[in-house]
Amino acid sequence: MGTCMSGICDSFGCSKTTNIRLKLPAVCFIWQIAMIILFGVFIRYNEESDAHWVETKKAKNLTDIDNDFYFRYPSFQDVHVMIFVGFGFLMTFLKRYSFGAVGFNFLIAAFGIQWALLMQGWFHSFHSGKILIGVENLINADFCVGSCLIAYGAVLGKVSPVQLLVMTLCGVTLFAVDEFIIISVIHARDAGGSMSIHTFGAYYGLTISWILYRPDLNQSKRLQGSVYHSDVFAMIGTLFLWMFWPSFNSAICNHGDGQHRAAINTYLALAAAVLTTVAISSLTKEKGKLDMVHIQNSTLAGGVAVGTAAEFMLMPYGALIVGFCCGIISTLGYVYLTPFLEKKLKIQDTCGINNLHGMPGIIGGIVGAISAAAATEQVYGAEGDTFDFTGKFAKVVPHVQGGYQAAGLCVALVFGVGGGVIVGTILKLPIWGDPADDNCFDDEVYWELPEDEESHSVVLEYNNHMRNRHQDVCETNFSVAHR
Amino acid sequence: MGTCMSGICDSFGCSKTTNIRLKLPAVCFIWQIAMIILFGVFIRYNEESDAHWVETKKAKNLTDIDNDFYFRYPSFQDVHVMIFVGFGFLMTFLKRYSFGAVGFNFLIAAFGIQWALLMQGWFHSFHSGKILIGVENLINADFCVGSCLIAYGAVLGKVSPVQLLVMTLCGVTLFAVDEFIIISVIHARDAGGSMSIHTFGAYYGLTISWILYRPDLNQSKRLQGSVYHSDVFAMIGTLFLWMFWPSFNSAICNHGDGQHRAAINTYLALAAAVLTTVAISSLTKEKGKLDMVHIQNSTLAGGVAVGTAAEFMLMPYGALIVGFCCGIISTLGYVYLTPFLEKKLKIQDTCGINNLHGMPGIIGGIVGAISAAAATEQVYGAEGDTFDFTGKFAKVVPHVQGGYQAAGLCVALVFGVGGGVIVGTILKLPIWGDPADDNCFDDEVYWELPEDEESHSVVLEYNNHMRNRHQDVCETNFSVAHR
Amino acid sequence: MGTCMSGICDSFGCSKTTNIRLKLPAVCFIWQIAMIILFGVFIRYNEESDAHWVETKKAKNLTDIDNDFYFRYPSFQDVHVMIFVGFGFLMTFLKRYSFGAVGFNFLIAAFGIQWALLMQGWFHSFHSGKILIGVENLINADFCVGSCLIAYGAVLGKVSPVQLLVMTLCGVTLFAVDEFIIISVIHARDAGGSMSIHTFGAYYGLTISWILYRPDLNQSKRLQGSVYHSDVFAMIGTLFLWMFWPSFNSAICNHGDGQHRAAINTYLALAAAVLTTVAISSLTKEKGKLDMVHIQNSTLAGGVAVGTAAEFMLMPYGALIVGFCCGIISTLGYVYLTPFLEKKLKIQDTCGINNLHGMPGIIGGIVGAISAAAATEQVYGAEGDTFDFTGKFAKVVPHVQGGYQAAGLCVALVFGVGGGVIVGTILKLPIWGDPADDNCFDDEVYWELPEDEESHSVVLEYNNHMRNRHQDVCETNFSVAHR
Repeated sequence: MGTCMSGICDSFGCSKTTNIRLKLPAVCFIWQIAMIILFGVFIRYNEESDAHWVETKKAKNLTDIDNDFYFRYPSFQDVHVMIFVGFGFLMTFLKRYSFGAVGFNFLIAAFGIQWALLMQGWFHSFHSGKILIGVENLINADFCVGSCLIAYGAVLGKVSPVQLLVMTLCGVTLFAVDEFIIISVIHARDAGGSMSIHTFGAYYGLTISWILYRPDLNQSKRLQGSVYHSDVFAMIGTLFLWMFWPSFNSAICNHGDGQHRAAINTYLALAAAVLTTVAISSLTKEKGKLDMVHIQNSTLAGGVAVGTAAEFMLMPYGALIVGFCCGIISTLGYVYLTPFLEKKLKIQDTCGINNLHGMPGIIGGIVGAISAAAATEQVYGAEGDTFDFTGKFAKVVPHVQGGYQAAGLCVALVFGVGGGVIVGTILKLPIWGDPADDNCFDDEVYWELPEDEESHSVVLEYNNHMRNRHQDVCETNFSVAHR
Repeated sequence: MGTCMSGICDSFGCSKTTNIRLKLPAVCFIWQIAMIILFGVFIRYNEESDAHWVETKKAKNLTDIDNDFYFRYPSFQDVHVMIFVGFGFLMTFLKRYSFGAVGFNFLIAAFGIQWALLMQGWFHSFHSGKILIGVENLINADFCVGSCLIAYGAVLGKVSPVQLLVMTLCGVTLFAVDEFIIISVIHARDAGGSMSIHTFGAYYGLTISWILYRPDLNQSKRLQGSVYHSDVFAMIGTLFLWMFWPSFNSAICNHGDGQHRAAINTYLALAAAVLTTVAISSLTKEKGKLDMVHIQNSTLAGGVAVGTAAEFMLMPYGALIVGFCCGIISTLGYVYLTPFLEKKLKIQDTCGINNLHGMPGIIGGIVGAISAAAATEQVYGAEGDTFDFTGKFAKVVPHVQGGYQAAGLCVALVFGVGGGVIVGTILKLPIWGDPADDNCFDDEVYWELPEDEESHSVVLEYNNHMRNRHQDVCETNFSVAHR
Repeated sequence: MGTCMSGICDSFGCSKTTNIRLKLPAVCFIWQIAMIILFGVFIRYNEESDAHWVETKKAKNLTDIDNDFYFRYPSFQDVHVMIFVGFGFLMTFLKRYSFGAVGFNFLIAAFGIQWALLMQGWFHSFHSGKILIGVENLINADFCVGSCLIAYGAVLGKVSPVQLLVMTLCGVTLFAVDEFIIISVIHARDAGGSMSIHTFGAYYGLTISWILYRPDLNQSKRLQGSVYHSDVFAMIGTLFLWMFWPSFNSAICNHGDGQHRAAINTYLALAAAVLTTVAISSLTKEKGKLDMVHIQNSTLAGGVAVGTAAEFMLMPYGALIVGFCCGIISTLGYVYLTPFLEKKLKIQDTCGINNLHGMPGIIGGIVGAISAAAATEQVYGAEGDTFDFTGKFAKVVPHVQGGYQAAGLCVALVFGVGGGVIVGTILKLPIWGDPADDNCFDDEVYWELPEDEESHSVVLEYNNHMRNRHQDVCETNFSVAHR
């Protein structure tokens, strides 16, 4: 007589320890105390956020509305939503890793922005021994952690929060140096960060994932898909990223036409990407059905790819072309490239960041280089300040600027891959409490789940049950019939 | 001896083909390429988003903050959220059509805004052979597709994405002409679009739904309700619409007091509508329980109805009265009118857009006409520019303006119903891949669902199972007992 | 032979009547009509939202961008999102009370803002017999109902909507008086409302909950936890609160540096609170797992505690220290204090508002007092207007201001506890249709649930079923075997 039902598969017998009760609090506390000390030593308000603003106003003959706060704060809040809700919810698509997606995203973003304020501040806002901060620094800090959240997408579900903190700490550091070289040394323009944020972040994450390759990851295959409502949650992330991307690409552009134009270009590139994503998604599936993974991700590729050139005179049709191409490339990437990368190159890319940020980021860098090289005085005006050809760059001509842009792209790639190798090697040490192969993509490892978590377990249990019941009853019937 | 369990009802044997693998990509590609060409020919940046802004500033003695971007961009982003998250999530209430709600909403909005930029541009921003665009054009494009998303609400779950694209293409075209007549020819004011957006959109959608009437729609009755979490998802849509409606109604008002007043009036009308919606919902149900459908929809009716008059000197109490009435009418519409329309007039209105946009839109038009007719110089000031009585309208007096407003409402109705008849007839052709009657409201038709989609199917299966098990075991027992 | 399956436990046999079919509509209608009359008598547009703005501009030599609308509207919309989506979704964590959380939050907020406009208007915007309103009044009205929504958190799931309306009506009234005393009489500064909003709201709610103590609440223990997706919904609330808190604390600060600095300080305090919340959550749980309740709530404590001092020259490291401490205290509160309060002090605090708003609010008041007392002319500048030392306060010195701040905190506590005693006593009357002890935390009492609400009931039923099936089949088998 068979047992009526097999117990729920208990996953506590795994060999790896995922206990992070000391490591995680230790890192958080030590780091936060270090931040307080460093902020105490270095960080002060800038002249627009300091109480002496009233004197600045008089000295410079300004009014309150000239405070940079009013030029950038609405964009800052939109970027903030993209970082915390956008990236966080975009990654909730896995059936049982929504806590980890949105929760660890929250943790590492809050952790990273503090370090970013310091690192970027030392490079860009350091005056007389102090870092002077205002709203633009907050936006840049959000941008900086954005690159680390992109990298998180590659390793989603396969690493411990301690590893994520290390990865973010190193990522922010690398980003700040990378960005300094691209923006200040090479003098490339990169308003929306196609190069410094997306390309760097994507290849940083992919390289780490390559080093942390798990050959037996299919042991947790049961958890790698989505369920209906987790896909709807992910659409919250997608839409807030999509809607606010014009703010992302325009947030730190020049006041006036720069911000205005960047918003328009981004709006258009994103719209075109939606159409081609849907087209390719339908083309590559039986009966033309759409795949939620594509809709959730590839629709955003237009925003990535128009990042560098958003403030340029790309022209509205130029923005549409960029979005058109990236929707296609990104969706094809999900269909063909991601499986190839996993099988042949041993790169496991949970969220497909190569398709959403990697390739579109590179395209964005190239588009930026071409647009810059093609700039003419007729289009940009004799006094236009888009390329900031003043001071030591007063004699730069467009095709030289195009070269600078291309050099910037290479720097981002080098930092991404190089940094990824180093950080990946560190993260491979067996001390970080990462999950076993059959425990990946499972919130149970690092989260207290609701005690009677039936809404999910019922799903698994129910199927087992149906199979068992079928068998049991048939056996019963059989035994009755053949008695 | 009964089979232990009937298989999941497979719905693949339906006679209609819903294969859109060629149609959908073809429409998307052709359309997007056409857009690129038309944008290349016609669309350029306006003086505020062009790199020559620095010269404009000098010529007109402006500063960067005078750029329209800073007056309208925050409102634009709010409107953008309403269009993509608001409308998209509002329609996720069905238990098994959330992908279609939020996904197709995304598709047709991204599709429509491009065409809207062209159509509206030709009518309103055409200078020397070019359409010059800035942030106000983006807002207007969002408004324009808003009317098509309203229409989508009437046919939600009953049409294919190809039909939706055709419906949007025609809808945007009709909207642009309709709006040109109302705003530029008749010279009615309609800042929040009670007439041009809501009335037009609602009757356009309802007429199409009437033409596409499905007498056997009850074959998919099992899928017409909501489940607990789909109702919570829908509340995301409701709340973002409700919260940002003040931005919607004020987005394109005159700078200064116009935008300010429109936001206040809308805020108040919406607040009042919540109270009366709750009151009527409770009154019309057993034990005074509230109905989520009413809370999700009728609370928004105040925003619709105050659209036209939002920028007028409606007075705060006037806004409250408008919201008060519309909360009542809209909720009563859900209780009594929607079933009546379906049974008697053969209009199947999935989301009840007649109650949320149709009737409140008409009320909004009437409120606008009355407010305009009642305008006095004492209230509006001798120099007030609310009604823009300059140029050829310099001699218009208020009661004439009231007549113009009423005429505008009639135009919106005529375009809605007339356009709906034509477009509905086109959509009735059997070439669009629409679902069979027993396949409506089901994401499975157009979406790859999660492979082990138990979280939903368990619901249906489980019930079947309980019935079957009951029967089987009883039969088993019976056969044993009576052997 | 056992019945195959026990019916779903019907909960209709409870002795208490929860029928609110007359009470709820009556309160809503009477109240809304009263609002219309009072608005008609008292409320008008202020000079920035009135059509005479064009004359004001000329008289004061202003331009449109000087309209307060452009300084505050983006912050207003962020605050609006916090009130409706933030508070609403934060409370959706219960497995079966999401409708009540987000729906009643919606109702009482829409109800309260109207009364708040009047109450606060009489105290602060009353000129020649009229209350003149603009965008700042809308923000203040949102703030005011915020305190009532905090109080709702303490009684979530245990009261009827009618009780909530009464609680909000009294709460708004108390808040307005409380705020008038703190801001106008005592002349304390409280931009982010640590004292007037959070401290008052928390102790108002906790006192009411104490008076409404239910000794047999464990009868509905089955519904007190969360399910997986309800926790994800709650994270929507958490994140929108967290992201927009800088707007909350800066919304009504002085133009220019005041708003700018408040946003920076809040951003930093919130980031630090995330790190320490995660640390303590991990430390206090077996295997270092994180608890969603802590992540959802304690991460926000930094924003509460920096409210009063947000516009002060708190310095970036000061903001970090405030967040650091409050993350710790708040999380420890959830672990140790909430159970203690329930067992020993008979205070049942559903959402743990004492940990999120109560203690951090008091800390915020203290931080404000210390910061104010420590102010120097060197730091704030001779002309700085942070403390508004003009008119009759021209001679106030910092340490006196520190005393004023401390006095403000005491006023908030007295109003919270005193008002809570009175209102709690009123709410204890057996006429409000509140649920029975075994019916708490259940949407079924006040909401029409989806007819085939399996996604939830399946959870309960399924478990019963598994037990029964096990038994039945075993019995069947037994009877067969032992025949």
